[in-house]
Amino acid sequence: MGSGDALRLHEEWRGKIEVVCRAPLETREDLSVAYTPGVAEPCLAIKDDIDLSYTYTRRWNMVAVVTDGSAVLGLGDIGPEAGMPVMEGKCALFKKFADVDAFPLCVRSKEPNEIVNVVRLLAGSFGGVNLEDISAPRCFEIERKLKKCCDIPIFHDDQHGTAVVALAAITNACRFMGKKLGELSVAVSGAGAAGMAVTKLFLASGVKDVTVCDIDGAVYESRPGLDEERRAVIKHTNKRDIRGSLADAMKGTDVFFGLSAPGIVTREMVSGMASGPIVFAMANPVPEIWPEDALAAGAAVVGTGRSDFPNQINNVLAFPGIFRGTLDVRASDINDDMKIAAAEAIANLIPDGELKKDCLIPGALDPRVVPAVASAVMEAARKSGVARL
Amino acid sequence: MGSGDALRLHEEWRGKIEVVCRAPLETREDLSVAYTPGVAEPCLAIKDDIDLSYTYTRRWNMVAVVTDGSAVLGLGDIGPEAGMPVMEGKCALFKKFADVDAFPLCVRSKEPNEIVNVVRLLAGSFGGVNLEDISAPRCFEIERKLKKCCDIPIFHDDQHGTAVVALAAITNACRFMGKKLGELSVAVSGAGAAGMAVTKLFLASGVKDVTVCDIDGAVYESRPGLDEERRAVIKHTNKRDIRGSLADAMKGTDVFFGLSAPGIVTREMVSGMASGPIVFAMANPVPEIWPEDALAAGAAVVGTGRSDFPNQINNVLAFPGIFRGTLDVRASDINDDMKIAAAEAIANLIPDGELKKDCLIPGALDPRVVPAVASAVMEAARKSGVARL
Repeated sequence: MGSGDALRLHEEWRGKIEVVCRAPLETREDLSVAYTPGVAEPCLAIKDDIDLSYTYTRRWNMVAVVTDGSAVLGLGDIGPEAGMPVMEGKCALFKKFADVDAFPLCVRSKEPNEIVNVVRLLAGSFGGVNLEDISAPRCFEIERKLKKCCDIPIFHDDQHGTAVVALAAITNACRFMGKKLGELSVAVSGAGAAGMAVTKLFLASGVKDVTVCDIDGAVYESRPGLDEERRAVIKHTNKRDIRGSLADAMKGTDVFFGLSAPGIVTREMVSGMASGPIVFAMANPVPEIWPEDALAAGAAVVGTGRSDFPNQINNVLAFPGIFRGTLDVRASDINDDMKIAAAEAIANLIPDGELKKDCLIPGALDPRVVPAVASAVMEAARKSGVARL
Repeated sequence: MGSGDALRLHEEWRGKIEVVCRAPLETREDLSVAYTPGVAEPCLAIKDDIDLSYTYTRRWNMVAVVTDGSAVLGLGDIGPEAGMPVMEGKCALFKKFADVDAFPLCVRSKEPNEIVNVVRLLAGSFGGVNLEDISAPRCFEIERKLKKCCDIPIFHDDQHGTAVVALAAITNACRFMGKKLGELSVAVSGAGAAGMAVTKLFLASGVKDVTVCDIDGAVYESRPGLDEERRAVIKHTNKRDIRGSLADAMKGTDVFFGLSAPGIVTREMVSGMASGPIVFAMANPVPEIWPEDALAAGAAVVGTGRSDFPNQINNVLAFPGIFRGTLDVRASDINDDMKIAAAEAIANLIPDGELKKDCLIPGALDPRVVPAVASAVMEAARKSGVARL
C-alpha cells in the first residue's frame, strides 16, 4: 500500500473498534432482565461482594489502554487525540489476537498524578490496565504509583512487552549461537522506557554483564542527572565501569541491543564486538544500523523492529497472551516471573531443528503464540502467588 | 421470569457489552495499515487538526456513560462496581436502539471535583458524556462544571431524559384532555435530579404554574436549606406561595407529577385536584399511588414508570435518539431547544386518532421513536446554533 492508503482506510472505518451489545434486547421481557427491574439482582450481589463484578459484568475481560499521547510510535508528543488511532489499533489487536476487550482512554494531561488519578478512580471498571506510549521518565513514576494504589494488574507495554520479546529473541540467539545468557556481555543503547525495562528483565533472567548507554554515552551509577529509579537499575550494570561512548561500551561485547536512535551504530562498532556478535537494532522505522551493514560487519545474527526484515521484535507477540493469561487467573500483578515465562514460551515455539539465523522468533501472526504465552503466564502467576483463580 | 433469572442470565452473559474490532487484521499488510507504520498517517493528521479525531477514530460515535454509583435505580448508593450492571445495560440500549457506541466508566469517588476531573481529562476520547445515577445535589454541580470545561455535550439522563419523556407525556395528556400547557397548574413531588429537571423543562416549555414539594412539603424560595442551584429554579415556581404539605400543594391542581417516594399520595389527595386530574406517579418500583387507586379517585389519565401499566415514562424513549441526533450533527451541547424538540417528536408519534387514555406515549420498543427524536434533535441543534455539522 502506498502513502495515503492508511488515511483513506481509517476514514472508511471511522474507528477501528466498536462497542456491541451481548444481551438480547428484543422484547419487553428482555429489557426487564438486562435492564430494570431485573438488573437490580446483579447490582445487589456485587454490592455485597465486589469480586462478583468479575462474574456479572465484563470486568473479567476488560482492559483499559491508557495514554497521554506523549510518546506515540516514533512520533513523539502528539497529544491524546492524535494518539487515539494507535490506541484503537492496540485495542483491535487485543481483541483479534486474544479475545481481550480493550478500551482506549487518552488522557488530556501530562501530569503524572493526574494520569494516576484517572486510572485509580476507574480501576473498578476494568480487569487490568495497559499503559501505552507514555514518555520516560514519567512512565516509571506513573506505573509505580498505579501498582501501589490499584487492585488490578498494571502493565506498561512499551517497557515490559518490549522486554519480554527482547528476552525471547536473545534467548534464541543464544541457543542458535551455543551461548549462555549468564555468560553474555550486553551493550544496551537507550535508557528510556524500553531500554530500562529490557535491562531490568535481562538482569532478572540471569544476564550478568549489561552496560546501558544513552545520548551521553555509557551510564554509570554516579553519573550526574540520573533519577532515582534509573539509578536503582543502573547499580547492577556497567561492571567494567565504562565512562566513554557507545562505541567504547560495545567493544568486545557479545550482544548489542538498540532501543534508541536511527543510524547511530557504524560497521566499525559492530566489527569491534566479540566474535559472532548478536545485533538487535530496534529503532523504528530506521534502525541503529541497517541489517545489511551489520551483517557485512560480521554480525552473526541480526534483528530489528521492522516487519520487512527477519527476526522482528514485535510486542504483539507478548501483550495479547500476557493479558489473556493474566485475566484468566485474575492475577493481581504482572510480575517478572510471568514476563520471563512469557519470553520462554515465545522462544520455545521455535524447536531446535527450525532455529535459523533468519528465524529466531515466531512471526507476528503465528497462531501458536497467544495460547502458549497465556498458558505459561497463568502457570507463573499461580506459582508466584498472584493468581486469584 | 422469576427472581434469580436475571442473576443467572447475567452470569451467562459475563458482561452485556463487548469491544470488537472493525478493521481487518488477517495479514501483515492489514497490520501495517491499521497499526504501525500506517497508523502514523491519521495520527499526524489529527495532530494538525484535532477535529479530525471525529473522522479517523470512533470518537464521532462514542459516548461515555459515567456514574459514581451513588443513586443507582431505586437502590441508592451501592458503589461504582455494583452500578456497573446498570451502566452496561445502558450502553447495550444505546447500541441496540440508536447504534451509539457507549462505554461505562464507574468512578471510585463521590467527590464532585474528582468526578469532574476524570471526565474532563478523558473528554478527547469521546463524542459525548451521559451522566447516570449520580445523586442530587452533586449531580447538578458535576454537570454544571463539566458543561463549562468540556468541548463535548454533557447530558445527565436521570435529569434530562426523564424530563423529556415527562414533557412528551404531559403534552399528550393535554391533547387528550383538551387542555393547554400554558394554562396548567402542576404539582411536582420530588426535588431531586429528576424533579428539578422536570420542573425546569416544564417551565421552559411554557407551563406557568408549578409547585415543587419535597419531604418537607412545598418548596418556596426563602425556605431555609435550599442550595443556590435549586433556589434559582424554585424562584419561578409556587406562584400561590404554598407553605404546607404535598396535599396542600395538590389541592385544585390539574397535574400531579411524582418523582419521589412510594405510596405518599392518597385517593383523597387525587380527588382534591381540579376536575379531570392528570396523575403521573413515577416512583419505582412502587409508585406514589397505584394506578387503580388514582383512577378510582377520579384521575382522568394515569402514568407510571413501570412497564406493566399503561403510559410508561421510560427514558429509553429519549436518550438513544437524543444522542443519535446530537452526535450526527456533532452538537456542542444538548440544550433546552433540543430537549423540547425531542419531547414534541415523541408526543407527535401518537396521532389524534390513536390518542387514548391508555395510549398517551409510544411504547419503549416502538421503532419509530429513535429516528423521529434524532431528526428533531438535529434540526433543533442547527436552529439553536450548537450543531457543528
